Amino acid sequence: MAVLAAQPAFAAADREKLLTEPGVYGTFAVFKVDETWWKLDKATRTFAAAEVKVVFQKHTERVTVDTYLLRGLMEQADFFVRVHSTEMLHNQNFLVDLMGTRLGKYLVNTYTFNGITKPPNYVPGFPEDLQKVVKTTVPDPGPKPYAIVVPVRKDAEWWLMPQDGRNAMMKEHTEAAVPYLKTVKRKLYHASGLDDLDFITYFETAKLDDFNNLIIALERVKENRHNKQFGGPTLLGTIRPMEEILEILAR
Amino acid sequence: MAVLAAQPAFAAADREKLLTEPGVYGTFAVFKVDETWWKLDKATRTFAAAEVKVVFQKHTERVTVDTYLLRGLMEQADFFVRVHSTEMLHNQNFLVDLMGTRLGKYLVNTYTFNGITKPPNYVPGFPEDLQKVVKTTVPDPGPKPYAIVVPVRKDAEWWLMPQDGRNAMMKEHTEAAVPYLKTVKRKLYHASGLDDLDFITYFETAKLDDFNNLIIALERVKENRHNKQFGGPTLLGTIRPMEEILEILAR
Amino acid sequence: MAVLAAQPAFAAADREKLLTEPGVYGTFAVFKVDETWWKLDKATRTFAAAEVKVVFQKHTERVTVDTYLLRGLMEQADFFVRVHSTEMLHNQNFLVDLMGTRLGKYLVNTYTFNGITKPPNYVPGFPEDLQKVVKTTVPDPGPKPYAIVVPVRKDAEWWLMPQDGRNAMMKEHTEAAVPYLKTVKRKLYHASGLDDLDFITYFETAKLDDFNNLIIALERVKENRHNKQFGGPTLLGTIRPMEEILEILAR
Amino acid sequence: MAVLAAQPAFAAADREKLLTEPGVYGTFAVFKVDETWWKLDKATRTFAAAEVKVVFQKHTERVTVDTYLLRGLMEQADFFVRVHSTEMLHNQNFLVDLMGTRLGKYLVNTYTFNGITKPPNYVPGFPEDLQKVVKTTVPDPGPKPYAIVVPVRKDAEWWLMPQDGRNAMMKEHTEAAVPYLKTVKRKLYHASGLDDLDFITYFETAKLDDFNNLIIALERVKENRHNKQFGGPTLLGTIRPMEEILEILAR
Amino acid sequence: MAVLAAQPAFAAADREKLLTEPGVYGTFAVFKVDETWWKLDKATRTFAAAEVKVVFQKHTERVTVDTYLLRGLMEQADFFVRVHSTEMLHNQNFLVDLMGTRLGKYLVNTYTFNGITKPPNYVPGFPEDLQKVVKTTVPDPGPKPYAIVVPVRKDAEWWLMPQDGRNAMMKEHTEAAVPYLKTVKRKLYHASGLDDLDFITYFETAKLDDFNNLIIALERVKENRHNKQFGGPTLLGTIRPMEEILEILAR
Repeated sequence: MAVLAAQPAFAAADREKLLTEPGVYGTFAVFKVDETWWKLDKATRTFAAAEVKVVFQKHTERVTVDTYLLRGLMEQADFFVRVHSTEMLHNQNFLVDLMGTRLGKYLVNTYTFNGITKPPNYVPGFPEDLQKVVKTTVPDPGPKPYAIVVPVRKDAEWWLMPQDGRNAMMKEHTEAAVPYLKTVKRKLYHASGLDDLDFITYFETAKLDDFNNLIIALERVKENRHNKQFGGPTLLGTIRPMEEILEILAR
Repeated sequence: MAVLAAQPAFAAADREKLLTEPGVYGTFAVFKVDETWWKLDKATRTFAAAEVKVVFQKHTERVTVDTYLLRGLMEQADFFVRVHSTEMLHNQNFLVDLMGTRLGKYLVNTYTFNGITKPPNYVPGFPEDLQKVVKTTVPDPGPKPYAIVVPVRKDAEWWLMPQDGRNAMMKEHTEAAVPYLKTVKRKLYHASGLDDLDFITYFETAKLDDFNNLIIALERVKENRHNKQFGGPTLLGTIRPMEEILEILAR
Repeated sequence: MAVLAAQPAFAAADREKLLTEPGVYGTFAVFKVDETWWKLDKATRTFAAAEVKVVFQKHTERVTVDTYLLRGLMEQADFFVRVHSTEMLHNQNFLVDLMGTRLGKYLVNTYTFNGITKPPNYVPGFPEDLQKVVKTTVPDPGPKPYAIVVPVRKDAEWWLMPQDGRNAMMKEHTEAAVPYLKTVKRKLYHASGLDDLDFITYFETAKLDDFNNLIIALERVKENRHNKQFGGPTLLGTIRPMEEILEILAR
Repeated sequence: MAVLAAQPAFAAADREKLLTEPGVYGTFAVFKVDETWWKLDKATRTFAAAEVKVVFQKHTERVTVDTYLLRGLMEQADFFVRVHSTEMLHNQNFLVDLMGTRLGKYLVNTYTFNGITKPPNYVPGFPEDLQKVVKTTVPDPGPKPYAIVVPVRKDAEWWLMPQDGRNAMMKEHTEAAVPYLKTVKRKLYHASGLDDLDFITYFETAKLDDFNNLIIALERVKENRHNKQFGGPTLLGTIRPMEEILEILAR
Repeated sequence: MAVLAAQPAFAAADREKLLTEPGVYGTFAVFKVDETWWKLDKATRTFAAAEVKVVFQKHTERVTVDTYLLRGLMEQADFFVRVHSTEMLHNQNFLVDLMGTRLGKYLVNTYTFNGITKPPNYVPGFPEDLQKVVKTTVPDPGPKPYAIVVPVRKDAEWWLMPQDGRNAMMKEHTEAAVPYLKTVKRKLYHASGLDDLDFITYFETAKLDDFNNLIIALERVKENRHNKQFGGPTLLGTIRPMEEILEILAR
């Protein structure tokens, strides 16, 4: 059971490494439970939930999985999983097995985003004091129950801009974000060619009001002119262990 | 039963506060009743409606809920609930419970909008006489049976405009709205990052002809050039207690 | 039964007034019959059709309803009703009752448009001879079996244009339409804020070739540059009494 | 049975006239067979196919119908019919009857396009030699098994351009098409106001490589700048008698 | 059984030729297995899978088919087939037969793309050294488990640009791609008029990080300004023999 918790305890893929290093493949898979599922009897639904746990356990050496409840905060979606591994194939194999369980047969896969982590592109070119702030600011301790995923696609002008121009814009972008480094954690995935996106931006926070202000601050910098897509969909959910999501689905 | 009325009488979340103060989270959840629901026998549907009341009662200390009938006036939607609380998590928990009832199993969640209330951004910078009009005009007494929700997204130029420019545009916007302050009540939610929106605008009125004229007046001010999205969907419904909506669904 | 005919004979809402005066609310509700309906036995479908007639009769004092067959000429839609009354609430109550019949349980509500009628905006400013033509041209007698509904949304530049500019453009628009006044009847609804539209334009004709030429003529005037949406969907149907539509659905 | 063949032999509407003269109404109706159809037993499906033949026969004096298989070459669609008659109402009545058969109850009407034929707009203004080429080039003999339908919508600038400008552009367009007159047959329908389109372009060919080159040639002329919509959807199918389509559906 | 493997061994269409020569028609058909399929008993699903093999065998002389698993990496899709032959009709006939099997009755055809191969347009005009690199670089040996399909549509300005301008842009495009010639295999199909696309670009790789960098490099060249559509959808899958896909579907 511990296997399903947000921080699996043993024999698992090196979660810390997968969550922090470059060259890791991340897949975000959003699911809506089919309406016919809710009409099954409760015993069947409870059994199906148990089967899901076995799948998590089976893949624990190759992928690390985080789980989020969207139900209530986003239409057409009940939950999503964020899967990390060193090969996209491992992500696929895990998800194929998850979708092959009895519960899986009732899951509608609303959205899937694929990306890869990389070393920071722009930070090395920032002035030293900004670099220092970015690298040393430690997020406030304590749980961050909310997670937000915002897929992003840039316009052609962004990609055709000389490196200098993009550096200056990303400096302005980063300065706007500095006041929120303590309350909003952020992680970036590159998605060009792996999906109809250029970036997947992932956030965790305990303070949604701060997050709302962060996004407004980012809307006010010139780089925003080059976002052909920002959201659409925005995923707003709460971080919950798979057991709790399964329990909600089995009610 | 009183719990379901628009103005619950006791032991409830401080409705007045939640509806007027900044820092409150609002979730608008739009539902379509699945076609298979209507083919259930009437007793089952009546029982399911009763279950919904229990959910409203259970959450009454944390959330305040308003209910609206869309059926007949909007495709793909039967009703929506507007949920307010001091934490988005409370909104989610209420909606998860609502969707977990027997009726909930037949609800298709067509749209969800999330926002947060804030102190007015622009009013403090208005000329004194305009400020006075805005602050002291009291809506006409009497019921306002219609509610309209218009989600809004601004373009990058709006957000990049200096504060002065936005102030001038919002002054023009507000002056255009003044003639309708008595017949159209308005409430604003900020949504950037909490949804694929920047604002959720909510209106109540008894006079839809006045409301139509208000929107035309707002289309005629320069700020309108910066609405990348205005509506899409526009929700037009009538304020009805949950009992009445349930009664309609149980017919 | 006469109640269902296009021109109900007695005790009904003042149809003439509702169809010609300003300040009247119009709701266009488009329906597709669910595929499971067609698999019901014929007796059930005939009984369900009879129930619909009772709903028409019940609301006859408050709303006037016209009915149109879309099936065959438009995807995803079988028929639509055009409902007029002095309060949007009456339109909603009629439609809620219609959708609450046994047939209603099989109706998918593909589109709904809401609008309000108003006195002409631009005609009073036209030169006298154009005013005279517009006011005195009588449509050719005889049935006009086809009806077309085109929803329209204007761009921000349209609304921000000084009245003079819009007057000049609407004069050009009207002159282009004059040759078709005898063969194409037209009615206009204002929809800003009541729907994701600015106007609902409604046409009746016996000559679709003339109607095609009218629309081409209107595409050739400068006002066309400001149509952000024109159609999408265009409804093309034939005017048919509800009995005939029900008979088709009960085959 | 001959009635269903591409060239019905007797007592039918004057097919030649309907396919070549102006003032004829054309309706293209695209259908997807519902997934539940395929799960019916074969006898039921064979019986249902026979019923369709009766409908074709019943309308043979008023409409002429061509049939095309899309299955395999286009998502969400299995076949389409092209219906011609001198009144749109005849097209509707035929399609209502077709959709009223047992097979019809399983047909999802994915798309419908409506148009009208007219005398050529631009040819009379072309230089004499171009006119001659257009009028005298005879398509290569032999079957043309492929049919392609491309719906088109022009932008406001196209319609507002003086006749001279459009003449010049259509001359360039026609010159680009001349090399393909022998291998690609073409027919044009005007759709403004009858659908959310301005034109429906219909092609037949035995050589899809030539057709691909023709479309590239047309993309390279200035008129292409004014195509707000070109395709979306493009229908690519093979001309097949209704019997063969029914046989495929009854397998 | 070998017939289903990626490289069928005997009596088959000349796979090598079909995969390398110009004038070959390619159809990409994407399928989602209907949710009701997963609720069938396992024996039925196994039997249905066997039937699919027979269809592959029947068409082996006319078409060559490659198969790919999308499930887990792309929403609304489980697998796709890439079909090549010398006539589009052969592709259609194969797919009609595939969709006519028992499994086929449960397949939802999410997307289909049609194209044709041609000799290179721009390479002959490149400087000699670039031509040499493009023609002589041999992809790294070893399996390339990932396949990506990116449909592309160019804007009118692209097609109206003089040949020289397009040559210069494609030279820049090709130079950006050179560093990835060894790790990313590429194949191009022309689609104008055969689909709502201009090109279908197909890639195989073992290194998705390289592929991500290739796409970023291509986003940085001026030709990118003329991509009206790039992806939407992007298909990311893994190359798997049909047996393995069937086995996954039959689990």
